[in-house]
Amino acid sequence: MKENTYYSESDHGPWHTANLGEFTLEEGMTLPELNLAYATHGKLNNARDNAILVPTWYSGTNKIMEQVYVGPGRALDPEKYFVIIANQIGNGISTSPHNSEPPFNKGSFPNIRIADDVRAQHKLITEHLKIDTLALVVGGSMGAQQTYEWAVRYPDMVKRAAPIAGYAKNTDHDYLYAQTLIEAITSDPGYNEGKYSSHLDVKEGLKRHAKIWSVMGFSTEFFAQECWKELGFTSVMAFQTDFMEALFTQMDPNNLLCMAWKWQRGDVSRASDGDLSLGALSYQSEDLRHAHRYRYVFYGIEDCQREQEMIAG
Amino acid sequence: MKENTYYSESDHGPWHTANLGEFTLEEGMTLPELNLAYATHGKLNNARDNAILVPTWYSGTNKIMEQVYVGPGRALDPEKYFVIIANQIGNGISTSPHNSEPPFNKGSFPNIRIADDVRAQHKLITEHLKIDTLALVVGGSMGAQQTYEWAVRYPDMVKRAAPIAGYAKNTDHDYLYAQTLIEAITSDPGYNEGKYSSHLDVKEGLKRHAKIWSVMGFSTEFFAQECWKELGFTSVMAFQTDFMEALFTQMDPNNLLCMAWKWQRGDVSRASDGDLSLGALSYQSEDLRHAHRYRYVFYGIEDCQREQEMIAG
Repeated sequence: MKENTYYSESDHGPWHTANLGEFTLEEGMTLPELNLAYATHGKLNNARDNAILVPTWYSGTNKIMEQVYVGPGRALDPEKYFVIIANQIGNGISTSPHNSEPPFNKGSFPNIRIADDVRAQHKLITEHLKIDTLALVVGGSMGAQQTYEWAVRYPDMVKRAAPIAGYAKNTDHDYLYAQTLIEAITSDPGYNEGKYSSHLDVKEGLKRHAKIWSVMGFSTEFFAQECWKELGFTSVMAFQTDFMEALFTQMDPNNLLCMAWKWQRGDVSRASDGDLSLGALSYQSEDLRHAHRYRYVFYGIEDCQREQEMIAG
Repeated sequence: MKENTYYSESDHGPWHTANLGEFTLEEGMTLPELNLAYATHGKLNNARDNAILVPTWYSGTNKIMEQVYVGPGRALDPEKYFVIIANQIGNGISTSPHNSEPPFNKGSFPNIRIADDVRAQHKLITEHLKIDTLALVVGGSMGAQQTYEWAVRYPDMVKRAAPIAGYAKNTDHDYLYAQTLIEAITSDPGYNEGKYSSHLDVKEGLKRHAKIWSVMGFSTEFFAQECWKELGFTSVMAFQTDFMEALFTQMDPNNLLCMAWKWQRGDVSRASDGDLSLGALSYQSEDLRHAHRYRYVFYGIEDCQREQEMIAG
């Protein structure tokens, strides 16, 4: 694996890596080796029924999920739960364009779908960690897409699901938004169809990508109330350059594009011809016979709901 | 003047042109000649008190304002009012980067402020049309910025003001948004610091600019309710390519950048050190002694308010 200093265990770890071996993707291609990196907090109880799974959002790693949600007395309390944070494929920690070997590296990394992440995580949870029930799956944005997919695909295993700020089936509007992020990167001549030698060749594109994130990723109220002050910045421009651009220019463009493609196409109803209505989600597995349960009602733990309200508010 | 076929009178006219002669801009530079193009509908009554002024929004011309608001029984009824639609500086119809002569053409066109438009329109209304009272100033987005500026700058002349979806002082969030539009254009190698030979050299940048407009310029509900169907399109992608991209790729990049710079800096409180509080808007003209009146309460005609609710809803 090649390294990008941003994706280091000293900054984002510690993490464990599960080698899931050969893995056939939803789009048909087979990866010779799929590594899923994950971090855990707390202890699995004797009944093995206190595990919480947290998939990551776009560009996020296990570290940011920990910082946002995990801790004694916080939404995901490791004194009560065994919290498993699973890095999504392409996020730079799990198998990703920048850390793969030819012919599947860089711009030649295959397209990944939300269902690939969820199937890989299922393998991790059941085969590697020997856990057969999840007290909760919770995630925001792309983490919510994975949460919905978990609930529809493995309903008997998911006791509670709390998708935060995400869709069961991605919308046209959101697809277009992700497209502006993609094109901010691919329009940079330094991108060179993914064959750049350093992510810094694409610095200008990554900066534009960061700027579009600032506009759409934060609310009008975030700017009206000058919430960036709470993050320690003295002006919007300082927040933009020293936080948003500084963050995203460290990342690998192909990694981001891998996640953006996946995000655009998140859809739990792929096997029901796009029908999200009750009963339509029959899928081709007996495990999914109760899938419709998850269409309208999702339950999170109390703390998590409070966190969700805070975020939504 | 050089021509861009998009900005033709056959498509956007008929219009009149008022040559306002030499015009010193807010930023200090003097344009040798400022032409303000405007279209009128209806007739000025004998009391000369039924005039409505409509400034244009970003990229819009007198034609779109007519199509949206003007007609018998519509918000701005030419059977009752004398409707004057004034093309903003830089929109391609009034004096703009693409139709100016060196040394003030293309990327060398000077920076324009909202107050320049309003001062020029004031000259047009009072000196060319000999009108000294406006029954209403109404406009959306950048048209709202001009409406606010009119109300603060010439309060005794503006009987009613209806700014729709715009700010008296532009926000940080909106500034950043306009910046993403600017950079979608300037990042295109074909832009060449404004020295392109044809607007089509910047086609890819203009398409990205159109895409960002689709995401932020329309509401989540517009996409959720598939309102693009009402515009005659069969898919979001058709709406995106055949309407949004087809529209914006006809325009001149320097014209758009001129308007975007202006939009970012709209602020009626420039003369009160950024203070928008009651009483602070004293400006340096006796005409503005009632400026504070316009801080919180704006009145539109009934029809116009209904239109505004429709747009806001």
